[in-house]
Amino acid sequence: MKQMIPGLVAALALLALPAAAQEAATPDAAIAVSADVAYIFNTLLFLIGAFLVMWMAAGFAMLEAGLVRSKNVTTQLFKNVAVFGIAGLMYWVLGYNLMYPGDWTIGGVIGEIFSPKGIDPVAGGVVEDGYSAGSDFIFQLMFCATTASIVSGTVAERVRVWPFLIFTVVLTGVIYPIEASWQWGEGWLSDMGFSDFAGSTLVHATGGFAALAGAIVLGARHGKYGPDGRVKPLPGSNLALATLGTFILWLGWFGFNGASQLAIGSVNDAADVSRVFVNTNLAASGGVVVAIICSQLRYGKVDLTMVLNGALAGLVSITAEPLFPSPFGAILIGGVGGAIAVFAVPLLDRFKIDDVVGAIPVHLIAGVWGTLIVPASNPDTSYVTQLVGIVAIGAFVFIASFIVWSVLKATMGIRVSQEAEINGLDISEMSMEAYPDFVQAK
Amino acid sequence: MKQMIPGLVAALALLALPAAAQEAATPDAAIAVSADVAYIFNTLLFLIGAFLVMWMAAGFAMLEAGLVRSKNVTTQLFKNVAVFGIAGLMYWVLGYNLMYPGDWTIGGVIGEIFSPKGIDPVAGGVVEDGYSAGSDFIFQLMFCATTASIVSGTVAERVRVWPFLIFTVVLTGVIYPIEASWQWGEGWLSDMGFSDFAGSTLVHATGGFAALAGAIVLGARHGKYGPDGRVKPLPGSNLALATLGTFILWLGWFGFNGASQLAIGSVNDAADVSRVFVNTNLAASGGVVVAIICSQLRYGKVDLTMVLNGALAGLVSITAEPLFPSPFGAILIGGVGGAIAVFAVPLLDRFKIDDVVGAIPVHLIAGVWGTLIVPASNPDTSYVTQLVGIVAIGAFVFIASFIVWSVLKATMGIRVSQEAEINGLDISEMSMEAYPDFVQAK
Amino acid sequence: MKQMIPGLVAALALLALPAAAQEAATPDAAIAVSADVAYIFNTLLFLIGAFLVMWMAAGFAMLEAGLVRSKNVTTQLFKNVAVFGIAGLMYWVLGYNLMYPGDWTIGGVIGEIFSPKGIDPVAGGVVEDGYSAGSDFIFQLMFCATTASIVSGTVAERVRVWPFLIFTVVLTGVIYPIEASWQWGEGWLSDMGFSDFAGSTLVHATGGFAALAGAIVLGARHGKYGPDGRVKPLPGSNLALATLGTFILWLGWFGFNGASQLAIGSVNDAADVSRVFVNTNLAASGGVVVAIICSQLRYGKVDLTMVLNGALAGLVSITAEPLFPSPFGAILIGGVGGAIAVFAVPLLDRFKIDDVVGAIPVHLIAGVWGTLIVPASNPDTSYVTQLVGIVAIGAFVFIASFIVWSVLKATMGIRVSQEAEINGLDISEMSMEAYPDFVQAK
Repeated sequence: MKQMIPGLVAALALLALPAAAQEAATPDAAIAVSADVAYIFNTLLFLIGAFLVMWMAAGFAMLEAGLVRSKNVTTQLFKNVAVFGIAGLMYWVLGYNLMYPGDWTIGGVIGEIFSPKGIDPVAGGVVEDGYSAGSDFIFQLMFCATTASIVSGTVAERVRVWPFLIFTVVLTGVIYPIEASWQWGEGWLSDMGFSDFAGSTLVHATGGFAALAGAIVLGARHGKYGPDGRVKPLPGSNLALATLGTFILWLGWFGFNGASQLAIGSVNDAADVSRVFVNTNLAASGGVVVAIICSQLRYGKVDLTMVLNGALAGLVSITAEPLFPSPFGAILIGGVGGAIAVFAVPLLDRFKIDDVVGAIPVHLIAGVWGTLIVPASNPDTSYVTQLVGIVAIGAFVFIASFIVWSVLKATMGIRVSQEAEINGLDISEMSMEAYPDFVQAK
Repeated sequence: MKQMIPGLVAALALLALPAAAQEAATPDAAIAVSADVAYIFNTLLFLIGAFLVMWMAAGFAMLEAGLVRSKNVTTQLFKNVAVFGIAGLMYWVLGYNLMYPGDWTIGGVIGEIFSPKGIDPVAGGVVEDGYSAGSDFIFQLMFCATTASIVSGTVAERVRVWPFLIFTVVLTGVIYPIEASWQWGEGWLSDMGFSDFAGSTLVHATGGFAALAGAIVLGARHGKYGPDGRVKPLPGSNLALATLGTFILWLGWFGFNGASQLAIGSVNDAADVSRVFVNTNLAASGGVVVAIICSQLRYGKVDLTMVLNGALAGLVSITAEPLFPSPFGAILIGGVGGAIAVFAVPLLDRFKIDDVVGAIPVHLIAGVWGTLIVPASNPDTSYVTQLVGIVAIGAFVFIASFIVWSVLKATMGIRVSQEAEINGLDISEMSMEAYPDFVQAK
Repeated sequence: MKQMIPGLVAALALLALPAAAQEAATPDAAIAVSADVAYIFNTLLFLIGAFLVMWMAAGFAMLEAGLVRSKNVTTQLFKNVAVFGIAGLMYWVLGYNLMYPGDWTIGGVIGEIFSPKGIDPVAGGVVEDGYSAGSDFIFQLMFCATTASIVSGTVAERVRVWPFLIFTVVLTGVIYPIEASWQWGEGWLSDMGFSDFAGSTLVHATGGFAALAGAIVLGARHGKYGPDGRVKPLPGSNLALATLGTFILWLGWFGFNGASQLAIGSVNDAADVSRVFVNTNLAASGGVVVAIICSQLRYGKVDLTMVLNGALAGLVSITAEPLFPSPFGAILIGGVGGAIAVFAVPLLDRFKIDDVVGAIPVHLIAGVWGTLIVPASNPDTSYVTQLVGIVAIGAFVFIASFIVWSVLKATMGIRVSQEAEINGLDISEMSMEAYPDFVQAK
């Protein structure tokens, strides 16, 4: 009863005040935003986030189709559509239940196979959850799909289609959900205090580690590394598509980071989502401008593909903590990402790791950077814990991926013949050229 | 007064409880979401839906520009922009008033010609409607435009530009609004219990029937069907654009189906919109994966264009009922769509119906399939009623379209000369090449 | 206390009524939408607007990449990404503080350099503002970026990269914020009663005046204007990209105009945003259809690039006042824009002003038209004030831009050599071809 009096008085006073005065007089969010309204806002945030992150699948497809040679474009396009389709099914059949709440019993995984938690066709929304189960599922699915899309670019131009699809099945159905469960499924990393807001490590570095394993097991493209140690550039066939893909990813990142606030049903959450938008954009801008300056200084010319990767590396870098940094901090974090995009490529070439689109610098190295720097702005985190999380996830994903790629190599083979590679995978793997009406340069 | 007491008590108790307890204690949506807030949510849903479905116009443009030969790309691009512009005007001048509430008197059609119902420049929003009239108009307009975009691809590479534009005027101003009025204008199909959530039949099969009539009246492209019965493939010139178009359409479909819930102003509606998102995406994924498997089994290779059409056919299939199916049901429904995309193309070729982009399998056949299977999950529907709706709409749209195409053929002619067709419509119809800087293969 | 009684009675009555009756009984928006809920809605509108307008950067990139010749595509793509990155930093470091509230003291500009007003990492949302500071910042930033994107197309195919970037720094950091401050920073134009809803003049004509100054200082492309006065068409290399860019811009414009309502937290605002959507789309449709008709009448053929520019000019035209016009009025306003897109190009050629993508007709001339016609529908404005605003902004932006371009020309030079221009800027400026695998026509 003691509790009741002030609430009642406040409510009555509220109702009686004129509108302008009320705005100043309602600090009590519990009254001002009902649970139902918050539920709808939060659900809407997830849905908007879901369609924006879904759009990133198109971004990867265009980026990669633009950065491979014209003889491999159809294959690359196919792989991107297939990855997104497969991720959709695998995350439903296995991934979501594996990941939340990390219940790995037979019942937890298989028991609900035909009806992921709460997404059944009969029940209405449950207000207590704060958002609809379906909106959470579709949003989380998109992160799983993004992880798989990252791999596709690195292993381009020599991987066979079917082994790649099988790897994608394992990555989206098992590897990603397990490591993501450690943090987002309230697992041991979460208990330890690891922090990765939208997945610099959980999504981007994970995709990068899986790609790195693939690149090592596959080997470099024919002709990429000459016997004399010379690195031969194999330029992408369509920089307009690559640029389009980058802009698509940039757009999608507002959903990726913004909706990872997981709520917009209160004034504070709405302000936080806005701050995430601002920092995400500033980090990308920082990545662009630093990549322009670095490529001019390093190579004497601005380099479009490095600038595109600079934007993406800036975005990956801020993904681990887009909320706490000041605007200037976000620019610095993204700017370092932009420098990584310029300077890490020769590093990979030194080890003869052939990453067709630069996904390893952009997603793995910048992802690690972004995760490591979180404690600089977020007081609730520690550098040690961040490092533990990165090492644990990196080791698990790299080793698991390495094993899967190796088994595939030993059994069905993962690489096209040298002749097929020279003629292009669009002939050998797909029997369909991407640009049949255009005369190709030899 | 009897009604008043419990409400008052509930309200007072509510105000006095701490926030966490309140969330569990507010089952009464009428209190938790005011009519004004619901109005804003519903309006916002329509607006988001509108811009997502608008984006599908770009999807059709890219898909079709990618699937025609390079000599016809400018024409195809023009048709897609023109269709969207014309639909915007015709739906305003005629379509919207014809369709809602199906008032076909002179007053109902012409009387409000300069101010569709409620979209006048003076009046504010009317809370009782539950959403703003303008948001409804712009959302519905996009469905009209989508219907017309479907036709454009089938009749590509031989139709003359101006007759096509005139057909579009009739389709968007008269044919679509009339048949849509039967269901969404509270017409006789609606009274009968026909059910088509977002328009598998009302939009997609309608576009498909109009396209089918056009393909028949026009005849096949020169060289498509050899005298020996051999079918000559005429591959698309830019599969990157076709893939982009498919991703655009997939993205837009979240608005197409999601906002067709027509409300997100309550917890149940928000949960339902989420479920629609999930099922829409699962059906598309099912379409992709089944098309991969079917094309591998049928042709011995995965086929990118069939996989793209598989995704779209999956999306069309679930459009009639994306709410009731279980997730697994959605995958099955979309998967059958994917199989249709693979196996229906030879069927059309047997009848020498030349559908340049595969719009008839994807939109008509998968649309009919999706509409027919609604009663499997939705207990309020019957197979007979679904069939009656499909037959009625199909007959009306096909016959009306056939008449319009035939009249155009008899009067101004609808087909370019054979020489113009061989040289490409971009020369004869537009005097403007799409890719003038690139050397074209003979 | 007098005020309290009716409010209390209304509230109690409200709580006791059944749901249906309540909807009709709650005309009091102050009760129906709390300040917190309105804050979240308004913030969400800004965020949605921000990502839609951000997407316009991709639209300009694709439009311009499609309309330049293939030898200049990489450069054009780079410029568009760079502009967007630079605008992001400059608007944060200088622009935002210069513009709001027009505080040009050292403290106002430099004092908050590392933390634009209210976007600090500590403070939560402030309900009284009605929306979050971060959401306003990111939305306003996009308008600054749009202004700069407009310039990029006009000066294409001969401008050197680094002087262009420096011009962009000044435009986004100084010129745009100053003129925008006159109106949106509650400056003297705002005090005078000037009206420009979403920026026909403040953004589009501003970009156009900056582009015009650049085109004059730069001079025309080599070969564009023959010694005999003949104008040589230099067709764009990829009309699919140009069309894609137009659709992207059309989509983004729903955010550009719609979110410029600045609020969706009340029934009236939601209805107004909807009306803005409707009028924006109708104006674009009007632009398309009028451009089709005009190009057919004027040139005997429909012209795709003119139709694309017609759509954009329709959109620019309605941007100054998308709320007040009737639907028919919006079509007329946009239709005149479409005619401008067709007929203004020869006008520019007469003065040998070489505008590669037609940005001056579309953004400057149609922008002026849209701003001038505002008083026809908005009773709170006057033709004289509109004219004063246009002249003031035009003079300031043109002169300031002319000076900056001239200083750059006199110091570092702004134009590539004639040989570099003939070989293409992608070689001389970027050392990177956009389409290296394709054989280019001589």
